[in-house]
Amino acid sequence: MRMRQQKPHSAGRKGQTGRQTPADRGQNRPGNRSRLVRIYGRHPVTAALANPQRKLARLYATREALAALPHPPKVETLLLDSQELRRLVPEGAPHQGLVLEAHPLDGPDLFDILQNIDPADKRPILVLDQVTDPHNIGAILRSAAAFDARAVVTQDRHAPPETGALAKSASGALELVPWVRVVNLARALDEIAEAGFWRIGMDGRAERTLNAVLGDCRPCLVLGAEGEGMRPNVVEHCDELAKLPISSRVESLNVSNAAAIALYAAAARV
Amino acid sequence: MRMRQQKPHSAGRKGQTGRQTPADRGQNRPGNRSRLVRIYGRHPVTAALANPQRKLARLYATREALAALPHPPKVETLLLDSQELRRLVPEGAPHQGLVLEAHPLDGPDLFDILQNIDPADKRPILVLDQVTDPHNIGAILRSAAAFDARAVVTQDRHAPPETGALAKSASGALELVPWVRVVNLARALDEIAEAGFWRIGMDGRAERTLNAVLGDCRPCLVLGAEGEGMRPNVVEHCDELAKLPISSRVESLNVSNAAAIALYAAAARV
Repeated sequence: MRMRQQKPHSAGRKGQTGRQTPADRGQNRPGNRSRLVRIYGRHPVTAALANPQRKLARLYATREALAALPHPPKVETLLLDSQELRRLVPEGAPHQGLVLEAHPLDGPDLFDILQNIDPADKRPILVLDQVTDPHNIGAILRSAAAFDARAVVTQDRHAPPETGALAKSASGALELVPWVRVVNLARALDEIAEAGFWRIGMDGRAERTLNAVLGDCRPCLVLGAEGEGMRPNVVEHCDELAKLPISSRVESLNVSNAAAIALYAAAARV
Repeated sequence: MRMRQQKPHSAGRKGQTGRQTPADRGQNRPGNRSRLVRIYGRHPVTAALANPQRKLARLYATREALAALPHPPKVETLLLDSQELRRLVPEGAPHQGLVLEAHPLDGPDLFDILQNIDPADKRPILVLDQVTDPHNIGAILRSAAAFDARAVVTQDRHAPPETGALAKSASGALELVPWVRVVNLARALDEIAEAGFWRIGMDGRAERTLNAVLGDCRPCLVLGAEGEGMRPNVVEHCDELAKLPISSRVESLNVSNAAAIALYAAAARV
């Protein structure tokens, strides 16, 4: 039951928002979820092997890379040489002697993420609107893990699927940070607000800086695609807009850099 | 006379450090500097056309993209359609209707960058040790422009040449931030220290956080390659090490994200 926005059978919430059935949601999904992902590289594969939530299929490894793993892998393992591994990954992808075939992770449920939050816990949620580049998503997951974000939320139709390239950019963080994929971002933002988060939309045209807006709130940081920014309907579902204090000579930052700074700014308050 | 570390004939400094002649330096250079670079995409091309230091050769553009430029380009221009432009750039590269053939920029001289610094001016210099990915270098230049860094310094042999992909990631910032390429990074760090900068090496094993180390110094922020970090000889030429306050679950950040946070932290003091 992956990537649903809410628990379909949660007591007291059923039917409130006209949510879709799992079958409906399946129609919106990019690609077939029964496919296997090829995760490659030392950090991503080591992290996937260590993640009890990750369903493994098969590991391909060089003898040296296998010997260097911190624990013997609990999955069928085939020894290959580096040339053979190269044929399993996209051209030029740095496999570092390890290619793991695994099932995509079951996305967590936003409803679960928002339950039982300690009132003193100010860890942020990061919401991405139409950020599509897998390297950016991967780097953002890595920063989200580094600064202990509660979750990263994307809209299913406008975010890339889990791939080896994304996992490589995440450098293991794909296994650490809850990545919630929702059908409707505006609705998700409303649920996040109900859970006591202050929804801060990052926008270069905002009057106040992020640091001024953060105060001691529990932030939900919302970032849009580079160039286009957040969609108007997403902006409407923010409580406040904030900017990073950048030079007027530059229109914007790379979205993963903006996310990293926002996460740092939220973490550095504590 | 590109990419020299110091003015070869500056009065009073000549011969002090056994610096190389321009011919010697040429031997270390990656690639032929008389080549043309193909800069593509709306932001990079618009910025290059607006940069009086940039020597232009020829612009290829669609009619629509040409009409959307803020000023008529002062360079020979050929109208092509989008398909034809696609053949001028790497596969899949987003040209957005604009491909500019131009000469690589004359790299500025570190000696000049370090002259006549206002004692109250605490803008940082960013030094990159063996950061080789052109997308990372591009994104770092963009953040350096956004946070008004004085210069980005790399070692000539261990940094990529100026390319269209790098310019695209920099999103115009290649034209804004002085990018100094030196032969010897350790020597450059010593000259930077003499100019009153406090050299802070970013290292996850440091005891103090960057924010604690920054104080009100004029920082030179030194970042190493992901995974390997700074080389020992570069660490030796730092005054102090500092870390970002990241979770122990994560070994490091993407280097462009770490650079963005460090630049933000330095700028946010003011």
